[in-house]
Amino acid sequence: MTAAFKTVAVVGKSDAASIPALELLSATLRRRGVRILMDPRTAAGAKTKPDEVFPAEQLPDKVDLAIVVGGDGTLIGCARLMAPHGIPLVGVNLGRLGFLTDIQADRIGPSIDSIFDGEYSRENRTLLEGTVTRGGKKISTTVAMNDIVVGRGSADSMIEFSVNVDGEFIYTLRGDGLIVSTPTGSTAYALSAGGPILHPALNAVALVPISPHTLSNRPVAIRGDSRIEIMLLRGDGAKANFDVQSHEILQQGDIVSVVAAAKPAVLLHPPNYRYFSMLRNKLHWNERNT
Amino acid sequence: MTAAFKTVAVVGKSDAASIPALELLSATLRRRGVRILMDPRTAAGAKTKPDEVFPAEQLPDKVDLAIVVGGDGTLIGCARLMAPHGIPLVGVNLGRLGFLTDIQADRIGPSIDSIFDGEYSRENRTLLEGTVTRGGKKISTTVAMNDIVVGRGSADSMIEFSVNVDGEFIYTLRGDGLIVSTPTGSTAYALSAGGPILHPALNAVALVPISPHTLSNRPVAIRGDSRIEIMLLRGDGAKANFDVQSHEILQQGDIVSVVAAAKPAVLLHPPNYRYFSMLRNKLHWNERNT
Amino acid sequence: MTAAFKTVAVVGKSDAASIPALELLSATLRRRGVRILMDPRTAAGAKTKPDEVFPAEQLPDKVDLAIVVGGDGTLIGCARLMAPHGIPLVGVNLGRLGFLTDIQADRIGPSIDSIFDGEYSRENRTLLEGTVTRGGKKISTTVAMNDIVVGRGSADSMIEFSVNVDGEFIYTLRGDGLIVSTPTGSTAYALSAGGPILHPALNAVALVPISPHTLSNRPVAIRGDSRIEIMLLRGDGAKANFDVQSHEILQQGDIVSVVAAAKPAVLLHPPNYRYFSMLRNKLHWNERNT
Amino acid sequence: MTAAFKTVAVVGKSDAASIPALELLSATLRRRGVRILMDPRTAAGAKTKPDEVFPAEQLPDKVDLAIVVGGDGTLIGCARLMAPHGIPLVGVNLGRLGFLTDIQADRIGPSIDSIFDGEYSRENRTLLEGTVTRGGKKISTTVAMNDIVVGRGSADSMIEFSVNVDGEFIYTLRGDGLIVSTPTGSTAYALSAGGPILHPALNAVALVPISPHTLSNRPVAIRGDSRIEIMLLRGDGAKANFDVQSHEILQQGDIVSVVAAAKPAVLLHPPNYRYFSMLRNKLHWNERNT
Repeated sequence: MTAAFKTVAVVGKSDAASIPALELLSATLRRRGVRILMDPRTAAGAKTKPDEVFPAEQLPDKVDLAIVVGGDGTLIGCARLMAPHGIPLVGVNLGRLGFLTDIQADRIGPSIDSIFDGEYSRENRTLLEGTVTRGGKKISTTVAMNDIVVGRGSADSMIEFSVNVDGEFIYTLRGDGLIVSTPTGSTAYALSAGGPILHPALNAVALVPISPHTLSNRPVAIRGDSRIEIMLLRGDGAKANFDVQSHEILQQGDIVSVVAAAKPAVLLHPPNYRYFSMLRNKLHWNERNT
Repeated sequence: MTAAFKTVAVVGKSDAASIPALELLSATLRRRGVRILMDPRTAAGAKTKPDEVFPAEQLPDKVDLAIVVGGDGTLIGCARLMAPHGIPLVGVNLGRLGFLTDIQADRIGPSIDSIFDGEYSRENRTLLEGTVTRGGKKISTTVAMNDIVVGRGSADSMIEFSVNVDGEFIYTLRGDGLIVSTPTGSTAYALSAGGPILHPALNAVALVPISPHTLSNRPVAIRGDSRIEIMLLRGDGAKANFDVQSHEILQQGDIVSVVAAAKPAVLLHPPNYRYFSMLRNKLHWNERNT
Repeated sequence: MTAAFKTVAVVGKSDAASIPALELLSATLRRRGVRILMDPRTAAGAKTKPDEVFPAEQLPDKVDLAIVVGGDGTLIGCARLMAPHGIPLVGVNLGRLGFLTDIQADRIGPSIDSIFDGEYSRENRTLLEGTVTRGGKKISTTVAMNDIVVGRGSADSMIEFSVNVDGEFIYTLRGDGLIVSTPTGSTAYALSAGGPILHPALNAVALVPISPHTLSNRPVAIRGDSRIEIMLLRGDGAKANFDVQSHEILQQGDIVSVVAAAKPAVLLHPPNYRYFSMLRNKLHWNERNT
Repeated sequence: MTAAFKTVAVVGKSDAASIPALELLSATLRRRGVRILMDPRTAAGAKTKPDEVFPAEQLPDKVDLAIVVGGDGTLIGCARLMAPHGIPLVGVNLGRLGFLTDIQADRIGPSIDSIFDGEYSRENRTLLEGTVTRGGKKISTTVAMNDIVVGRGSADSMIEFSVNVDGEFIYTLRGDGLIVSTPTGSTAYALSAGGPILHPALNAVALVPISPHTLSNRPVAIRGDSRIEIMLLRGDGAKANFDVQSHEILQQGDIVSVVAAAKPAVLLHPPNYRYFSMLRNKLHWNERNT
């Protein structure tokens, strides 16, 4: 089988380190007769120019696939654009493999060939959609692939908020904040804060308190189709943070509600990809002497 | 609506503390014309004698409902008997409410009346089924409601074992052991060992390492329909423990495989039951001054 | 023996809840012929007026003892004023006992009498002294009783900093920050962030990473006479926070150096005070059913 | 300055992997005119035979220095013999550096030369001395360099014990056990169980609960000159374990009391040794991409 990827968005950082990988990628795609689109920032850094340049926001309408050259953060930023349009993503990592960007730069040729030959696994990753409501009015809605965090922001001391799930009161929590994390985000900030690793095939969301005042306020995993509402009770200056890529400054009484986004991000992995193999590598599980 | 519970197993401890609760329960059931069956141990402690006495193992075939008077451990023991036969369970706690036994002794009358009037919520709790294989031969199969633990047992130092999920290698782990926990068990031993709380509606299993040698070996939650295989590599004297109610001593090379049992335990809760309300109470989440 | 406390600073919150305790305290002190001084804020709330009113900063020069009526935060604020002058402190808690304020409001009479009769235990609690240096110039020096925290502040993502102890490089750390905690602070914010409890008699300081990116960056306890230097490498908007009572906004390259203050705070405890008994009470260690 | 090490005990494993290191060490020592003593097990594996062979227990009386070739466990076993006699130890690691064995096999020549030239740092490491008392009678006393652990042993469920420090009651604890750890042991089992890292220069002992039933039972560090008494309340089959090298099976009512041993172990480090540098290496603190 040959995958029908005719037009591809190539998205990367416009730094010197990316150039060789972008070149290799462009050459591979050109060889296969694929049309290459870029956003202005990526195009600025690329030596081989794309077939066309469009603002990043317009790319999802024009491509069959997005290939990200960079780290996990770059892929996440791109996934937030592509997911609502159902465009699948492939991640190429310039340095050490990422949790999400699983093609090494020096394997671009064979890996991209495999994927265009239809030899890949396809994986859905749930996105979250967070809405901030103030005084009963929605003031913003943002998607996130890793996590939506209600955090301390510039507040000097612990903040306080109440949490409801599907209308049921869970707790009032004092602490540095709360991470609402997807399985994808469970190996990111949530892991640092003491959360569990959630396998991506698990339809779940983790609620991970950050430095909670009450020691028994441990991480809780709930169904992925839950509606979570966090109301800020105390802590002007607190922030709702979306994937560390955008944020909203909160006021007392604001509600951040979180649900699964209508459409997941779709990742394409090269044939040899295994989730736990990637984890062992990233988390040094396979080192026996430590 | 009236529930069709005509014949009920009453299961409790045969100690003095249980007698008033057993009496109140028997009176309530008699008043409603319900037939009461007991196992010999419960019957020995009861003042009001049951309609009939059967060995515990025969009760599931003869009753529509089991009412447990005791703590969570007693309910779990009964659930392991009842679940394969689809018999629902109600839990009465003699002291402080348990995670599972959610009717207080002094509320027996109205709570049992509500349940027999059909006013209850019904909740499935997955059981695990663990099989120990030695030299390719199954030597035992046991169900567990909380957890199946491969632990150090009488081994003097850390044990070592490999873990596979659905045929994929996860890791080799050195430590005191591994807890494979249901959502039900996630608030028991697994919580003490640093595991996350899994909401019972989440179809998931947690793999919680006990004092792992490698610090990044953090708890992992996977799909509840996974097949987990743990092979003991080092640590003669290690044990597979099922709900702390039975165990198997392991030898090097033994494999403990864990899957979800075919049938869940079915719990009936009184109308006012809320999962998170119970957690707040048990874990002191609602205490603001700590 | 009778303690020579002739002139006492009474420091409290000026809220309605404090009035009965302040009255009881004033009556007890008056009965013993003790002179009472207050700061303007406390005096404003008190019904029985003090013998004299001075700005808080002038009180340490004029009194033999400070009695704080409030919570731990109030006592800490007062200790930061009194400690450099060697004035001992007594803490009265209005609600539930604090970690530091160990006299219950309804025990004011007998407890204060005991202390003035010389029946008390005296305990030194180390303070930290933190200095912020920018471009080689000291820009501020502040003492703290609980902790000095280099935290994320308004920075959107994890901050990065290097840590040296007595000139030896410890690590470069990425995360939400680092808590440098005294034994006193080890039961406050540091405990929420995963730090150990340090007994107050231990001459030690804990370095507790907040949500560290690298999972093996666990809390480290070092000698209390160490000199700790934290240099901000990345994270404009980060903050150095002193006991959550004052802070300094940091710039890249700033160094926060922390040493033990020259003089400890001196706490006087009523005769029945026991450190671990207080901990059991505060942390619910004595509750067997949880 | 030249150190006066005339007679040296060389202690290692008698396996093939150790032979080249033992040979290199023997050659280096012979070249310097040092007399070499071995225990029978080490001598059996060595190609170059020692000047004399004595039972391990007699070596401390006959040597000025002990050089251990192996891992941390081998060094600890030797330190327990040597420490009471004040004989210093040097550790050579065959594979990756250990927490304690800080000379790499391929650096034996120059490192041993440095040490014999007097270029080394000398570090005291406290040992613990644990006494098991049954019915008021001492039944054994054992020293430990890492930790003394009261653990579950073959008991099927959590054990229960009370802990006193210097006669003050600390808590009653239910769980898998309690680790009493030196700073040396704080990077071993205690770290896996969630304990803090204690710098070796800190005169402290950590009490680290293993999977405690009550979540607020967090690790506590106390003064190193404390007397700790652990009384087993429930859990026949529980064990007191000393450095995972020897153990005592406990009965209900047994008391394990722990104090600092009269003499510390003395480690000699090569000139380039730095404690935190070793930790960074062992715990992968210096890896930025994880």
